[in-house]
Parts: sequence; structure tokens; C-alpha cells
Amino acid sequence: MAATPDDSVGAFIPGPRAERPGAPEGALRGLTFAVKDLFDVAGEVTTYGNPDWGRTHGVAPATAPVVTSLLQAGADLVGKTKTVELAYGLTGENVWHGTPLNPAAPDRFPGGSSCGSAAAVSAGLVDFALGSDTGGSVRIPASYCGVFGIRPSWGAVNLAGACALGPSYDTCGWFARRASVLARVGEVVLPADNCGGGGIGLGPLLKVDEAWINADPGTARALGAGMAAVEGVLGRALAIELAPEGLAALYEHFRCAQSEEAWATLGRWVEQAGPAFGPGVKERFAAAKAMDPAKAAAGRAFRRVFTARLRALLAGGAVMVYPTSPAAAPKLGISLEAQNAVREATMGVTAIAGLAGLPEVTLPLGRVDGAPVGLSLVAAPGRDRQLLELAVQVSRGLGLA
Amino acid sequence: MAATPDDSVGAFIPGPRAERPGAPEGALRGLTFAVKDLFDVAGEVTTYGNPDWGRTHGVAPATAPVVTSLLQAGADLVGKTKTVELAYGLTGENVWHGTPLNPAAPDRFPGGSSCGSAAAVSAGLVDFALGSDTGGSVRIPASYCGVFGIRPSWGAVNLAGACALGPSYDTCGWFARRASVLARVGEVVLPADNCGGGGIGLGPLLKVDEAWINADPGTARALGAGMAAVEGVLGRALAIELAPEGLAALYEHFRCAQSEEAWATLGRWVEQAGPAFGPGVKERFAAAKAMDPAKAAAGRAFRRVFTARLRALLAGGAVMVYPTSPAAAPKLGISLEAQNAVREATMGVTAIAGLAGLPEVTLPLGRVDGAPVGLSLVAAPGRDRQLLELAVQVSRGLGLA
Repeated sequence: MAATPDDSVGAFIPGPRAERPGAPEGALRGLTFAVKDLFDVAGEVTTYGNPDWGRTHGVAPATAPVVTSLLQAGADLVGKTKTVELAYGLTGENVWHGTPLNPAAPDRFPGGSSCGSAAAVSAGLVDFALGSDTGGSVRIPASYCGVFGIRPSWGAVNLAGACALGPSYDTCGWFARRASVLARVGEVVLPADNCGGGGIGLGPLLKVDEAWINADPGTARALGAGMAAVEGVLGRALAIELAPEGLAALYEHFRCAQSEEAWATLGRWVEQAGPAFGPGVKERFAAAKAMDPAKAAAGRAFRRVFTARLRALLAGGAVMVYPTSPAAAPKLGISLEAQNAVREATMGVTAIAGLAGLPEVTLPLGRVDGAPVGLSLVAAPGRDRQLLELAVQVSRGLGLA
Repeated sequence: MAATPDDSVGAFIPGPRAERPGAPEGALRGLTFAVKDLFDVAGEVTTYGNPDWGRTHGVAPATAPVVTSLLQAGADLVGKTKTVELAYGLTGENVWHGTPLNPAAPDRFPGGSSCGSAAAVSAGLVDFALGSDTGGSVRIPASYCGVFGIRPSWGAVNLAGACALGPSYDTCGWFARRASVLARVGEVVLPADNCGGGGIGLGPLLKVDEAWINADPGTARALGAGMAAVEGVLGRALAIELAPEGLAALYEHFRCAQSEEAWATLGRWVEQAGPAFGPGVKERFAAAKAMDPAKAAAGRAFRRVFTARLRALLAGGAVMVYPTSPAAAPKLGISLEAQNAVREATMGVTAIAGLAGLPEVTLPLGRVDGAPVGLSLVAAPGRDRQLLELAVQVSRGLGLA
């Protein structure tokens, strides 16, 4: 087993590490990994980012199967990483465990909720790391920390033994510094693609106008070379308008439907345990509790229609491309109000895959004011392996595979 | 797609069927199946056995991945089957949808909670059916209805898109009339075995004394030939004492820890929706709500120790064998008190695999007073495929493969 790395960026949960050696042979032998502290490891307390959660839940009886499968494939687990409390936030702040440093932009937030996993990968402390993504919690920290990340098709990776935030949205994703490592992990944890056939089988490329217009001008410019590399593989992109109702409406429907589900999932614990929450998280649970059922129902109804529309659009292998986040990570120390504005602009885009259960791979292909931004490739459910192979091909030409 | 069968035994949810044709090719082409109505099928309401659940949850946005994988393997879905309300009961009674007939013993309960799936398979309405098993909900109706059933290793089959009762206990299992069909379904939905190596790789055979002593004398006698067939494959069984604390203590620890988790999972909905419940279910949720936290904590602590003990015992490939249920299905119309006595005697045995997350296959190898009883084979987590292959070998000699 590899030596435990120093935690130079505060990516890991403080205290003794949950270390487990991988099997002596396997497809991932020689790689080290970490898991967001919402995945159970037998004999360890899962904190879900909040001391009161750990205190009220005790030691995990079994290891999450996705973690077991990585160990059996030979990867060495070197510890559990920080998460935003109950995975309910996008900046990556955690007042109890400390906010991880963003290794790629130390004066900025790392992004969340899978902040520790993104930071650990970005700093080179591990080869890959598991996170979870409900509304952007892998894609955003990957974009902010300058690493590859995937949010798989909803349901593609087994979430048994992982804490839930909204089960009909939750996915198990992961981060890596190289596209090839991102793909190798997928070969272990993903089912076979749903679409059959050989080769990549993807195309045409669809440039989603709203998401590019929504991005800061600097972001769009910074991703120009990456965009050209993707077009080099899939051919010239067609510009499309995806959501005539506007990205703000996508975010609003997502917020209403998903926060109702978050409260249904976690509200009872919040009310009975009376946990202390850091800023932002507390307000989001209060809003979830107060969610108007009519708005939540409208959100759910919109979701069904939008999902059907997106699946029809993408069924033949089409790939959407757009900036993962409209901007690089916000600077540390900005107000909660400013954080909320970033959140709204960001989640109008992340809601696309979130609502429709689509796989999304983000590639670290741009820099704005010295800070990373990612380019996202999004396809129909079940095309996860094809997307990962596409990411490898795109990255190869750019020296990142 | 095969014609929809008549529902001669009341196995399906009343009303229009959720039918979906399977892919034109695949390992399960030509087979029909049904799913317990706690698995989501996109565009359909999942009732979880209770009208108020359906009313308050609406239409499912996506199909559960395990159902999708079966469709992609070519099997035709012919409908959704009845379940005990919120999967919280072992008799199979459902006062809202009607209790399915036990095709193998029409004057007896079908067993639950996966009552409709067991009845549909037993009556020949489908080739196989999905159920779920938290504390016995596949194993018991399989034993009572005279069919093969498997409760896989905890976490082995993806439960995304399935309603939860106790996530750290819940598993997705299935039923078939032939061991070979049970195994073919496993080839589609199970991960590769954890243990590597070729062949069955199982043995020695361990006869768990307490479970045989706990069974009615008629049950033990009726399973003699089946026991001999298992010994014919794995060699003479060694008698062992598994739980010096007694099966009643296993059940009590299981009950306390699991009902706390059931209330954590479903209590908020129960309190907010104020659903009407049939007899038994209502009382069980009341008891779950009132569960003493100290007892639940003791149950969780016992579970960790017991799990470690069982995994050590079974690590090398040992297989435990015992009657799935201590007796054939109870007669319809017995009192709730009598039902509770059956439940206690039964769950002392089902708690073994339930607490430790073990895979258990039940084979329909005995009859008592004309009603079926099953023989169970139980192994270490991850040996699901090996157990299914063992069931095929045992059944082949008995003409049931």
C-alpha cells in the first residue's frame, strides 16, 4: 500500500484516516483514492460533513459496495474527504472540519459539496476520489479545482451505503487529474453502456446557446481551444436552443422539486437531532422545510416533460457541450448574498443534467484570471462509458489524457 | 411481446398494467417478468402497497436501473405486483389491493412482503419476478409459495428507484419456478463474485443446529431429501451452533435496530401524510416510532459483532443450510396475535442473513400438510453467483433445474 500522503490542502476529515489496502491485483492496482465522507466504510463513523450526524449515526456496519468494488480492483483507499454538510451546498465551505484549499486557485472556494475529493485530486494527494452529485456537487468542484470529473447517469452507480440528499437526483461521481484514470475507474464501477454497438457512437455535437450566453465572456473565451478540440473529434457543433423557458426557470423547478425531496429525506433527522449547521446550509434546510407543495409539484411535473424532451433529443448519440460553470470559483470571503447569486447562475446550467438524469463529464480545459473552468460534455443516460472515451480522445490531443 | 396473462390469483396491482417490452435480443429474451410495486417504472405511479403513498408521491420520473437492465436483457415486463404496505409485514396481506392467493396452498397466506411477485411466479403468470427483502420479504413468500427465491448480498443489486424500508438492510431479490431461471437473472443483475477463482468454490456445508431445532418437526422431516441432495454436492454437513445467544435474541436485536431505521426512513411521511394502514402495519409503525433508542443502539452494536463473526465463519466458502421458514405458511384468518408468534419464530432465522448482509437462496424442496417449505443455502457476501450455481446443481438431481 502506498504511504499516506500529507494533507497539504486540508482535503481529508481531521483525525485518524480510514485506510484500506486494495486487492493485490486488479485493473486499478497502483492507484490511490479517497472517498467523500458520505460513503460508508465498515467500522468507521460517516460524518456527512456534520459532527451531529456522526454522533447520532454511529459506526457503519458495512462498506458501501462502490468502495468495495474499487478496493477489489486493487486501488488503495487512503482516507475520507471533507464534504459540505449533508452535501447541501456548492461553495465547498465546512465550518466544522475546515474548508479545503483550492489547490488550483488558493484565494478561491474549492467548490462543493465534494470539496475534499476535488481538492485531494487537484493537489495530487490521490489518483482519484469519489464524490456525489445531486445538483452539481462533482461537476462544480471539478470545474473550480481544475480536474476531470464525472456525474454519471442517474442510477448507473450503486449508492447503497452512501448518505442520501435526494434519491431521485443523487449520483455517485468521481474526480481524476487524467482523463484516462477517470475512464479506468468507470470501467470498474459503471454498467455496460445501454446503447450497444462498437466505437464511440456519439454525435452530432450540440452547442447549447443558453449555457454559453449565461457564461462570463471570459469563460467562453477561455474554453475556445477546448471547444475546438471537441469539434476535432465529433465535427462542427450545431447551435441549439435547449430551454426556451430560460435557465432561471430550470433552476427554479429544480430547486423546488429537489428541496422538497431533500426535506423528505433529511427533515426528520434535522428536526429530531437539532443539529448545528454552518451558514448557508441552515438557511437551505429552512427553505426546504418551508417549500410550497404546489411549487414542488410544478417542479416535478416540469421535470417529467423536460426529461422526456432531453432523452428524445439525445437518444441517437448527440452530445451537448457547454461551460460546466459560468465562471471560475468565487473568491473566498464573499457575502452569502453574493454566493447565492453565483449559485443561481451556476445551477441554471447544472440543472440540465440534474433534472434529466444525464451523464456529464467535465474537462479542465480553461483558465480565467489564473483560475480553472471546465468544459462539459453531456449525453443520453447509459452513454457514460462513451462519454469517458470521448473525454480521453479530446484530452489526448491536448496532452491531458 | 408475450400476451398479458390473466391474473388468476390476484397477484398484480388492480387497474391498467405497467407493461414494457424487452429489447429484441438479450440473455433473457423470451422470458416475462413482473416487479413488486416498490420499483419505479417511468410514467407510472409507484404505490408501495398503500393508496396514500401513491397519492402523495405521483408519477415516477425514471425507471429503476435494475428494471431497465432486465428490459435491456430482453425480458418483457408484464406488470407490477402487490406488496405489503411499505413492505412492512411477512404474511402478504394487503387490505387495499387484496391479498394475493397462495397458488401452492390456497387456504394459506402467500407470505410477504413480496406477496404478489411470489404468487405470480408460483401461478405461472410470469417466468420470474422482482421483490425486495429487508427482513425476509423474498425468502418467506418463496418458501410459502413453493418457488425459488434469492435475497442477494446487501448492496449487490442497485436499489436506485426502489422505495426504501431500511437502507442498511434492504436488498433487491427475485423469484423463479426453476433454479436455472433464478441463476440467469442473477447473471444480468449481479456484479461478478467477490471471491475470484473458478468452479463453485463453496464448502464445507454447515448445518445450523438452532435453525433446525427451531423448525417444526414436520418441516425438518420434509426437507430431509433436499438436505441429502445438498450434501450430495457439498459433502456431509458439519453441525454447528451459530448463535449461543439464541435465535430470539437475534430477532430482538434485528427488530430494535431495523425498526429504528424504518422509522428514520418513513416516519416523517407517516406523520405528515397520516396514511390509512391495514392491521398489523399500523401497529408496527407505532412500535417503530416508540422504539427505545438504547435498545436500538444495542441492536446496532450486536449487529456489528454478529456480522464480523459470520463473515469470518463464511470467508473461505462455507455454506450454511437450514429451513427457510420454521413452518409452512400460516392459515388465512388466524389472529394478529398468532401472526405475531409466527413472525417471531420466523424472523429469528431470517435475521441471520438480514443482520449480516448475507446472500441466501431458498429452494422449494419440501411439503408439510400439502403446503410448501423451502430449504435455504447461505454464504458470505459476494458469493451470490456461486450460491445460484449451487442451487442449479442441487436442483438438477431433483428435476427442478
